[in-house]
Amino acid sequence: MSWRATILTLYPDMFPGPLGTSLSGDALARGLWSLDVRQIREHGIGRHAKVDDTPAGGGPGMVLRADVLAAAIDAATVTNDPRPRLLMSPRGRPFTQADARLLATGPGVLIVCGRFEGVDERVIAARGLTEVSIGDYILSGGEIPAMVVADACVRLLPGVMGAEASGEDESFEKGLLEYPHYTRPREWEGQAIPDVLLSGDHGAIARWRRAEAERITRERRPDLFTAGE
Amino acid sequence: MSWRATILTLYPDMFPGPLGTSLSGDALARGLWSLDVRQIREHGIGRHAKVDDTPAGGGPGMVLRADVLAAAIDAATVTNDPRPRLLMSPRGRPFTQADARLLATGPGVLIVCGRFEGVDERVIAARGLTEVSIGDYILSGGEIPAMVVADACVRLLPGVMGAEASGEDESFEKGLLEYPHYTRPREWEGQAIPDVLLSGDHGAIARWRRAEAERITRERRPDLFTAGE
Repeated sequence: MSWRATILTLYPDMFPGPLGTSLSGDALARGLWSLDVRQIREHGIGRHAKVDDTPAGGGPGMVLRADVLAAAIDAATVTNDPRPRLLMSPRGRPFTQADARLLATGPGVLIVCGRFEGVDERVIAARGLTEVSIGDYILSGGEIPAMVVADACVRLLPGVMGAEASGEDESFEKGLLEYPHYTRPREWEGQAIPDVLLSGDHGAIARWRRAEAERITRERRPDLFTAGE
Repeated sequence: MSWRATILTLYPDMFPGPLGTSLSGDALARGLWSLDVRQIREHGIGRHAKVDDTPAGGGPGMVLRADVLAAAIDAATVTNDPRPRLLMSPRGRPFTQADARLLATGPGVLIVCGRFEGVDERVIAARGLTEVSIGDYILSGGEIPAMVVADACVRLLPGVMGAEASGEDESFEKGLLEYPHYTRPREWEGQAIPDVLLSGDHGAIARWRRAEAERITRERRPDLFTAGE
């Protein structure tokens, strides 16, 4: 059975969106993964299908109700559904390439897209949601973050990437950012490709790339460099 | 003149995508920002509009040519275009809420979406691109990251967010993750809303929220907590 992503959102029309094009879209069309998008509002309350209410204790914004979201999750999963359940939220643990690798080796993922001021805290533990953040910034909702997670995972699924895009030399896979790339023309606006890359000396090229990757990582992300040692 | 985003991509059909819906989409329709999406391939070489070539020095993947990308950038900008130019890349400096605030107060942004193995290094300095990363994971391209940056900025533009979504109590704005939210019903699946939030004592509520924000930040993101002290 192929890798299954279920996405719970108040904006189902945003999907597949960018996930329907390019690498992820090709893989979707080839059946290498499936995308099940659910409208949370189908479980809203009353004739207006209300999904949110004012925060207890006051403050701006609206909070997604626990009962509504729980009903939406319950309807989108089967008993003992083995898939991890993520809640996209700036309060979450940072999502990393290691998480993508782990998710991609599993059966799939259920992703809840947060909206409004937040989600009623009680549903998070009650439905086993893991809060995950794609970075230290605030977006208008969890939909684009859900696309980030899905795209990061899908490209790692068997058969999705051809030989033209190896996953092994990339940033983060060795704890280093990637070395600089060059291609034709050999000289452009007075700048030449570094001689070593045209030398044909594979050992020297590998050493140069390693040194450049280390230099760039040290300059830009000393946090990664230390962690990788 | 409204805030202007120009996006250079090999997949223009992905846009506006999720940026055309919800908060960003409403703001786009109201003219609070504009989106100019350019196809890099229009500047490709020869009758096949070639945009990439094999990496100098060997290795997997293809590299986006400097001459092609430079031509696309030059065509999408005016002389002395004051907008910052970002290249979405996992090698970049991490994008943060402070960057979003800064960009949102300026005239707009030009975003280059990377694809393939990478972009010829020479064009980065030659066209003043700043490499920016939305997080420590690899995606199939820079399009979803460009949406992240645009959405983070657009929601901060004057007039975009109503009173229902204050930007001040949010995660990162005070160096802390946000406190837990609760809403009706008062009891759900045996879990009650914390008494303090129903007490009407605004001072006690503010103290509880501050303490919870500190606790959550300390538990989940000790890096932020230390930095915020």
